[in-house]
Amino acid sequence: MSVILKEIWKHAQVSRVELVASTGLTSGTISNLTQELIQLKVIREYQSISGLVGRKRVMLGFDLRYYRIIGLDIGRSSFEIVLTDLAGNKLQATEGNVNGHTGPEGYWAVIGPYLEAIKNDVIAEGLKIVGLGVGVPGPMDHEKGILINPPNFKGWAGYPLKEVLERQYGLPAVIEDDARTSALAESRYGLGKSGADLVFVTMGIGIGSGVIFNGEIVRGTNSLYGQVGHMTIEPNGMRCECGNQGCWETVGSIIGILRRFDCGDMNAFMTAVREGDSDALRCMEETLRYLETALINICNMYDPEIIVLGGRLFPYISEYLPVIQERLRGRLFAFAKDRVLLQPATFGESQSAMGATATVLDALFSRPLEVLG
Amino acid sequence: MSVILKEIWKHAQVSRVELVASTGLTSGTISNLTQELIQLKVIREYQSISGLVGRKRVMLGFDLRYYRIIGLDIGRSSFEIVLTDLAGNKLQATEGNVNGHTGPEGYWAVIGPYLEAIKNDVIAEGLKIVGLGVGVPGPMDHEKGILINPPNFKGWAGYPLKEVLERQYGLPAVIEDDARTSALAESRYGLGKSGADLVFVTMGIGIGSGVIFNGEIVRGTNSLYGQVGHMTIEPNGMRCECGNQGCWETVGSIIGILRRFDCGDMNAFMTAVREGDSDALRCMEETLRYLETALINICNMYDPEIIVLGGRLFPYISEYLPVIQERLRGRLFAFAKDRVLLQPATFGESQSAMGATATVLDALFSRPLEVLG
Repeated sequence: MSVILKEIWKHAQVSRVELVASTGLTSGTISNLTQELIQLKVIREYQSISGLVGRKRVMLGFDLRYYRIIGLDIGRSSFEIVLTDLAGNKLQATEGNVNGHTGPEGYWAVIGPYLEAIKNDVIAEGLKIVGLGVGVPGPMDHEKGILINPPNFKGWAGYPLKEVLERQYGLPAVIEDDARTSALAESRYGLGKSGADLVFVTMGIGIGSGVIFNGEIVRGTNSLYGQVGHMTIEPNGMRCECGNQGCWETVGSIIGILRRFDCGDMNAFMTAVREGDSDALRCMEETLRYLETALINICNMYDPEIIVLGGRLFPYISEYLPVIQERLRGRLFAFAKDRVLLQPATFGESQSAMGATATVLDALFSRPLEVLG
Repeated sequence: MSVILKEIWKHAQVSRVELVASTGLTSGTISNLTQELIQLKVIREYQSISGLVGRKRVMLGFDLRYYRIIGLDIGRSSFEIVLTDLAGNKLQATEGNVNGHTGPEGYWAVIGPYLEAIKNDVIAEGLKIVGLGVGVPGPMDHEKGILINPPNFKGWAGYPLKEVLERQYGLPAVIEDDARTSALAESRYGLGKSGADLVFVTMGIGIGSGVIFNGEIVRGTNSLYGQVGHMTIEPNGMRCECGNQGCWETVGSIIGILRRFDCGDMNAFMTAVREGDSDALRCMEETLRYLETALINICNMYDPEIIVLGGRLFPYISEYLPVIQERLRGRLFAFAKDRVLLQPATFGESQSAMGATATVLDALFSRPLEVLG
């Protein structure tokens, strides 16, 4: 059943005959399993007119009518909730900031009512929510759904996020590092849909990355794989909350920029840049240099096909993307310099929340009967 | 057959009953395939006395008597050749330097006679060489066995190494980046034998790494995965041959050290360090700082279970390993700081050549009938 769902995902629509060919299962088995999936309302039949003779074929695709997935992104100062169908189409989105609230209780006071409202709406329509996917700053214990001790994120250390959400909303919850959900959104719905290995770099209050190889999130031994924000980029730089010194995050994140150019917020900084303030221009140039160095290190260490840039800082620097790509070309191994694709994130502020829905889809595809209860 | 060979490798010795249980194959299939492998002289039966009752059991293990593997490491100034059996036991080793020769022709003039002699010895004993594994500075096209344009390695750009060796010696050849062969030696025969994810950092004239996840070498899109020597470690540092600026290799390798403390060779440098020359001491301290920063980046980006250090520079700095491990602990994410194991390479100067034999073993295990001709 899992194999069939993954095939349908890959091709959007597929015939039973094609499923027999691609899975190696017998046509009897394909008939039985697809019938069961149709009864579960996970897939349905579509009529398709093929070829010149106009012969009708019956194709199988996801049934987009019954199941819904909620994706929640918990940021360091904001949140986003999306509702999707089984094809990852965004049906609804809600965003907001947490208005100075800190720690889980403060966040739930703001986010809780929205989650309740969305859940009740779906139920009122007679539809079913498959699960709740959550992107949140790492590091974390993904399996257990417990945050470890995310830097710059007070009050969340050791918080059993998965357990709390499952109890609160009665839905299966999948908890994932927000950089990894962002990468997954790009891999499942965006630039990596054809299977490219990619690194998603998210730059905001912190800096992190999600790395996808062979279609899967890479986590490492302690779930620290991809902590690019904590590579040393200023050898004699300041101490970081992670324990290291001169981390990219300490200088290249929103916090890092506003520490170097003390002006309140990013809009004030950008105004100073546009007005030609020499300190602001120098700070922007430094920020781009840090980014450039970090990207070179990412290329030489991960060697991905695509690097995607996103996060709340990114809109402020997106205009420099062609310049950065050009500078990278000048610093990469000559034979590979034209092969690294630097791209902006596909889903903007919904990136992590969209990826959070993809974590639930992945769970559904891997263990359909268990996830559908 | 491949599954059986991998099981035997994992357990060294295993009974047919255990093979049925672990592979899910029928006992008839196991009987036929093991019989074929015994006839091929790849495996043989061993008598084993098990348990208190002293019942004899027939176990299957590799037949160490007939097949031999040659491992060759081609370094930037030296070479090493080892001969092993199918269990990776080193039966013979030859090392030497290339005495100022450059480029393939110069190297073959030195190495060729040793390879001929070893091959002829094995044949004279009535034994058979499975293949020739080669470690050589990357980057390269591993599948085609062609070097690309290795920095600091004049005359080898574009050289079709695999094809030349196969024609010259009539043996299947496997060509691999020397940092990756070194990592593979550690994974198959050394510290990673139980399956640990590891990064092998080789420091010599250049600096590189081989990364093993889930028992497999990770290569990346352009075969550049693991080019840790080309991460920027000095943001305003000198231009590197790779195209980047301030690469770790430009300051932390043997060449980098001798560029910063101009004294001819590493022995002269170490003498100056031991005599307390203040410039030499400062250069050593800088070298350790670079290493420390690089290792932090490796931890935060690859998050491995084990980091293994080797290469021709390593013996000169091995005494500082406990200091470096301690400094790392102070800079890693607190929850993970006791989990990174920093270890010296197991096979010293034979590291890459041993790993080169493992590339042939891997090929044998994956495609036994093809490799044995």
